[in-house]
Amino acid sequence: MKCTVCRGPAVIDLRRHNANFCADHFLRFCRDQVAKAIDRHEMLAPGDRVLVAVSGGKDSLALWDLLLELGYDAEGMTIGLGIGDYSEASTAAAVAFAEGRGLALHRIDLRGDYGYDIPTAAAVTRRVPCSSCGMSKRHLIDKAALDGGFDVVATGHNLDDEAAVLLGNVLHWQTEYLGRQAPVLPARDGFPRKVKPLVRLGERETAAYCVVRGIDYIVDECPMAEGNRHLRYKEALNAIEAGSPGTKHAFYFEFLDKAADRFRPEAAEAQEGLQACRSCGAPTTGELCAFCRLVDRVADAEPVPVELLRKGAGRNGRSGRRADAATGARGDT
Amino acid sequence: MKCTVCRGPAVIDLRRHNANFCADHFLRFCRDQVAKAIDRHEMLAPGDRVLVAVSGGKDSLALWDLLLELGYDAEGMTIGLGIGDYSEASTAAAVAFAEGRGLALHRIDLRGDYGYDIPTAAAVTRRVPCSSCGMSKRHLIDKAALDGGFDVVATGHNLDDEAAVLLGNVLHWQTEYLGRQAPVLPARDGFPRKVKPLVRLGERETAAYCVVRGIDYIVDECPMAEGNRHLRYKEALNAIEAGSPGTKHAFYFEFLDKAADRFRPEAAEAQEGLQACRSCGAPTTGELCAFCRLVDRVADAEPVPVELLRKGAGRNGRSGRRADAATGARGDT
Repeated sequence: MKCTVCRGPAVIDLRRHNANFCADHFLRFCRDQVAKAIDRHEMLAPGDRVLVAVSGGKDSLALWDLLLELGYDAEGMTIGLGIGDYSEASTAAAVAFAEGRGLALHRIDLRGDYGYDIPTAAAVTRRVPCSSCGMSKRHLIDKAALDGGFDVVATGHNLDDEAAVLLGNVLHWQTEYLGRQAPVLPARDGFPRKVKPLVRLGERETAAYCVVRGIDYIVDECPMAEGNRHLRYKEALNAIEAGSPGTKHAFYFEFLDKAADRFRPEAAEAQEGLQACRSCGAPTTGELCAFCRLVDRVADAEPVPVELLRKGAGRNGRSGRRADAATGARGDT
Repeated sequence: MKCTVCRGPAVIDLRRHNANFCADHFLRFCRDQVAKAIDRHEMLAPGDRVLVAVSGGKDSLALWDLLLELGYDAEGMTIGLGIGDYSEASTAAAVAFAEGRGLALHRIDLRGDYGYDIPTAAAVTRRVPCSSCGMSKRHLIDKAALDGGFDVVATGHNLDDEAAVLLGNVLHWQTEYLGRQAPVLPARDGFPRKVKPLVRLGERETAAYCVVRGIDYIVDECPMAEGNRHLRYKEALNAIEAGSPGTKHAFYFEFLDKAADRFRPEAAEAQEGLQACRSCGAPTTGELCAFCRLVDRVADAEPVPVELLRKGAGRNGRSGRRADAATGARGDT
């Protein structure tokens, strides 16, 4: 297998691009794809202060590294979710990356700063953990970006993520979410601009990028996400992609070109009537935002060890969770 | 496992309906679902003369049987496609069903009546066989319905078929096809009305219906469709449905309710400017319709045995076929 560019030994084949690359040209390919995404979707302007949401996984560390390589002013932020060993290892990977390069990493710990963790939130709300986890992360990164004077939040969602979210949204024709699914969410009152510069790269590519760049990332998937719909949608798309390379790319980008606008009215409607949360000031449809409601509800609860929430465990195991939070459809990812 | 209705021994469980049925109540369920589809989508009026497209498979024979059970005046039509033993067995099943019940079955044989067969058409056009097969069947059933004074053509497309076609259409955002995908296509100049009364039943249910009713159908799938995208989309949806029963139903019916209208303009546009084929009079965008062009091209070709077109075979095997006909996206199914 030879590099399509220089004919040297290739380290990776990319079937949807009908190309193979050596290590150097693969890194260049990744940078080019991110630069192209940033350019085409007008994600970042020169001089923007970027806050990168860093989990410690391949995507967020590759993203942070790539933005720095492309010359952007990018600081990191990581949130301790309290999901046992997984969270500890994730935070450690983020910290090691930042310290090794002398980068600024802002840290929040859900338990230390807000008195709860994700397993406890899932147990108390009786919803899938991904529900309170996603909401908490979105809220806290928005707040950190606004408080810190950042111009934009960058997240590590890759093509596989976006295609799987899109599949969930079309399987249930979630018209509001379809109208909002985009690689850029513009800033609005109380919300920072949010961008997804990795939308042109698949997760196999972000993993390979980290390997080639010598970035240590946490390889394990979150133990609480096991068997969720999002992963099932990824598997279904992977099976289709294997037979028809390029399907995921076409699915996502042709959606943006040819279909997304048709769903804008519902998304715009859903954004009307937002007001400031009376506790924290974040935009919300009610008096109190979802994050403050969650904190009110779970901050005093007895901590639930993550093991209790694994498959088939106890009264708050998967079987007891409410299904309505688990449609796998998503709006503001 | 007990029947949800009468508590007698059940013969089938339907997870998406959270129900089990004994033989009698399962037959009633099938009739009710077909009656509901006909009613909700205004497919048929009392006294309509219906022409059923009969392949000899479970769907078309179940459809014909169900329409008769519901009191409709339904005749059958079957087309000999020339796909070796498969076509012979299919036609035999259709003929046996009709003769056993004293029903009118109109027959066409591609080779005898038009001088070609599907393997030869696929080899000469170098497209996937499903391309010339689908087009030939649509053309000939439309013509038979119009010539025979039928009010409507009924086809055996079931929920699995429609959901898989929809998935293909959204994976490539085929906006024109999305605007046209519906359980009823109204009559237009030169086209009869076309309806799909089985859209509320899955293929497992149509197979079970035939078994319970003692209908002999051809069990084999078409050997030329092996590995095509439509089957891959079905498998992907089956994997999702297994974890979330009801997903296919929601995907298809919520599309009709909440999304289909958004794609109508492209479908309408594509129908403008149709004229009569100068050879057969069927509506077409060019001078000669696709069917007449195909007949012109392949009727004099040397017959190609079906075996030559099986996986990996000869110069006209799968590897040599043009991919653009194999997107798995479809308009007028």
